Amino acid sequence: MHTERIRLASLHDKVMSAAEAASLIEDGMTVGMSGFACAGDAKAVPFALVERASREPLRISLVTGASLGNSLDKHMAESGLLARRMPFQADPALRKAINAGEVMFIDQHLSETVEQMRSHQLKRPDITVIEAVAITEDGHIVPSASVGNSANLAEFAEQVIVEISLRYGSNLEGLHDIYIPPHRPERPPIPLVSVDQRIGNTAIPIDPARIAAIVISEYSDSPSKVLPADADTQAIANHLIGFFANEVEHGRLPRNLGPLQVGVGSIANAVMAGLVDSPFENLSMYSEVLQDSTFELFDAGKLDFASGSAIVLSETRGAQVFGDFERYKERLVLRPQEISNHPEVARRLGIIGINTALEFDIYGNVNSTHVGGTHMMNGIGGSGDFARNAQLAIFVTKSIAKDGAISSVVPMVSHVDHTEHDVDILVTEQGLADLRGLAPRERARVIIDNCVHPAYREALSGYFAAACERGGQTPHLLEEALSWHINLDKRGHMLAAD
Amino acid sequence: MHTERIRLASLHDKVMSAAEAASLIEDGMTVGMSGFACAGDAKAVPFALVERASREPLRISLVTGASLGNSLDKHMAESGLLARRMPFQADPALRKAINAGEVMFIDQHLSETVEQMRSHQLKRPDITVIEAVAITEDGHIVPSASVGNSANLAEFAEQVIVEISLRYGSNLEGLHDIYIPPHRPERPPIPLVSVDQRIGNTAIPIDPARIAAIVISEYSDSPSKVLPADADTQAIANHLIGFFANEVEHGRLPRNLGPLQVGVGSIANAVMAGLVDSPFENLSMYSEVLQDSTFELFDAGKLDFASGSAIVLSETRGAQVFGDFERYKERLVLRPQEISNHPEVARRLGIIGINTALEFDIYGNVNSTHVGGTHMMNGIGGSGDFARNAQLAIFVTKSIAKDGAISSVVPMVSHVDHTEHDVDILVTEQGLADLRGLAPRERARVIIDNCVHPAYREALSGYFAAACERGGQTPHLLEEALSWHINLDKRGHMLAAD
Repeated sequence: MHTERIRLASLHDKVMSAAEAASLIEDGMTVGMSGFACAGDAKAVPFALVERASREPLRISLVTGASLGNSLDKHMAESGLLARRMPFQADPALRKAINAGEVMFIDQHLSETVEQMRSHQLKRPDITVIEAVAITEDGHIVPSASVGNSANLAEFAEQVIVEISLRYGSNLEGLHDIYIPPHRPERPPIPLVSVDQRIGNTAIPIDPARIAAIVISEYSDSPSKVLPADADTQAIANHLIGFFANEVEHGRLPRNLGPLQVGVGSIANAVMAGLVDSPFENLSMYSEVLQDSTFELFDAGKLDFASGSAIVLSETRGAQVFGDFERYKERLVLRPQEISNHPEVARRLGIIGINTALEFDIYGNVNSTHVGGTHMMNGIGGSGDFARNAQLAIFVTKSIAKDGAISSVVPMVSHVDHTEHDVDILVTEQGLADLRGLAPRERARVIIDNCVHPAYREALSGYFAAACERGGQTPHLLEEALSWHINLDKRGHMLAAD
Repeated sequence: MHTERIRLASLHDKVMSAAEAASLIEDGMTVGMSGFACAGDAKAVPFALVERASREPLRISLVTGASLGNSLDKHMAESGLLARRMPFQADPALRKAINAGEVMFIDQHLSETVEQMRSHQLKRPDITVIEAVAITEDGHIVPSASVGNSANLAEFAEQVIVEISLRYGSNLEGLHDIYIPPHRPERPPIPLVSVDQRIGNTAIPIDPARIAAIVISEYSDSPSKVLPADADTQAIANHLIGFFANEVEHGRLPRNLGPLQVGVGSIANAVMAGLVDSPFENLSMYSEVLQDSTFELFDAGKLDFASGSAIVLSETRGAQVFGDFERYKERLVLRPQEISNHPEVARRLGIIGINTALEFDIYGNVNSTHVGGTHMMNGIGGSGDFARNAQLAIFVTKSIAKDGAISSVVPMVSHVDHTEHDVDILVTEQGLADLRGLAPRERARVIIDNCVHPAYREALSGYFAAACERGGQTPHLLEEALSWHINLDKRGHMLAAD
């Protein structure tokens, strides 16, 4: 009966099979689930739902922290279970259904979903499913490898289902810091003033009467799929390290740089890992997802503390970290994504935000989400929460893609997620553009000279010069502004001739 | 010698002519000046600078709170004084110079300028000129009708020039609340938790040794030029009032709505004035600029308290308010724009942000700044500070302009200032689109059905339907997406045939 995991005895009779628990979820419901970047997602119950959806009409609105592992979003999309999905996803099959208009996807700043539920701007979940490592004597829920939106989704739901994961040790208890901002009006400030501060509880407070079911789960989290660093990502890291060194030298950054936020994915992870060989010490992170690079930096003695909302590791690194967790635990905290990404905290701490761009334009507007301006890749995630409020908002990308058919720097982005007001530094393997304090025409010159691949530099210079002839604060040739994307779509290369 | 205005006797020998004070400013300097939306700008010294610039090489980088009155930006631009200008302007002559590429204009979120200076991301002013109603016994500066960036620009400058305005009574003292966030790291939370709270000083703290000159000024602020309400703005106000009433009825807003922020300009002012005849009482404002409508609401007994960064009134209303200031003073506070617009405070208080759009697209992206995607109108101002962090981010505009040649709703905005993630409600005289919790395809349907002028509805519906055929989260026909703007430019009407 796993009494050491379910420490409130009166809940023991709530243990049931995943199928029984899933039967609490009805067609048309809004369902909350734990899960952030493949960490700590509910698994047993969603798989049971997929099975049910193959037999009966069952469509739900699904709200999670962020993306899910175990191909859950794929299975749920393909079974027809998902009518609506928010606030983030990263699955090819779900992406296909979203772009076909079959699943309504609400792409949100990750700090905002639960805030909007709190003030009833968004519908609250009828039922929420959370993966946990334990339930305390008080009936409170100890999450597993992510917090995400779990605490708030549990708070707002009428019923809660807990999946007790036997794959994570109960020694994860103490890792989490659950702080929930009170309702407005007269909400007090969030008291967090340093990355290592604990301001909440180690478990999700909940009236145990709302725990409707407990499922014992043997499922594992999916390992992260970050690619190893390559010459381009190493070059990006080197440009950034050189920039940071210059900032420190001129007194614009402290010697430990200040709290770092690093987006999910191979490029950002490689940039972070590049700091292992940098001169900077006593680093700290105030980020969303802690990846392999966080633990590389711990092991190298470079990193003092890391605050995040999820721990997402490769298979090897995951076995090592969770197999020797006491070694790291005192230097880690996982917070609700509302707090890890909160504008109030990001601005107060003065984080350095490093996120990946899909493309950016000569004025520094960034597209993080839409391929060709129309087709969703993953979602904006936390990049907007961080870029807007960071002390330094940095976006990185390789200068070209698809063997050079695509330039990541274009005349005008086909979709805007971050406006030029929110973008300070752009980096490709070609170089770094420091846009601080520059007007758009100056930004264009710095971006073209530093970030663009040589194969595209002349074309962009020509576009910019012709646009300046027409004038404007942000010169453009509207009839050509999106022609690179149209070329790519019709002719397979951004610079293909008619 | 105006000893009642300059209460620190040791400063009396700093009184000099505007020309003498202006001589402290050298070619190439970065200069800070008070002034926000035509309120409380320095005037005597900038006019003296304009005079100097007609005789000698003199180019400066000018940083203010926001736009200036007395055609100061026009005179400074036309004299060639301005090499660089930030963070906002609203002058036709300066606009022309900006769009010609003659003045480098850095268009910023108004809460961010001094934050970027604090962390040395932006160059600090060499010298700052501030209009004041008095200097205290401690040598601290009591601003006039705006705070804007004055406190911080004074803090960061090596030298400060004070213009003592004899046009405002010294009874403005006590109106202001100067709070300056400490430097990072370990900055405490901003303690503000309600609109009427005072958290700082009534004057700008400064070492009086840095006051290099004092100029006695007889200049007046320019009156605001808001247009009276018309049938369209009244219709917009009515749509909003109906929406608010429904939100209150369903428990999503409190009976007093919560703190209101209202952008500068005729449409926003008319919407606010429309609340005089609404059922809502005990209203409060947490805004940037307090316009005539604020005082109409006070006089109607509807408004309890208004917090802003500037008071900008028409000639008649200004004479009445400042002639009878004690009547209003206890219900008013002016704060630094960093605080009036701060993400931390806007999010905590859960403001309702109402701002004017230049155009928006069928997915709810908003252009606030660039005519035809290229030519700067005024700047983003505080709209981004508020829209991102508001409980409800509302944008208003008339559905057509230029006798119908322009639709304010377009297939794709030609420039993005606010992305769909940050826009909850759109209102034109045609109706109101409630976009909360909707995916882009759903947003398009609601916007087209509710906000578009009948003359453009069929064309937009057709565009949307054809785009959906191609698929995507945000369907577009890239080759037609900007064609309405191109048509307008080439043929004088957005729907003109070839």
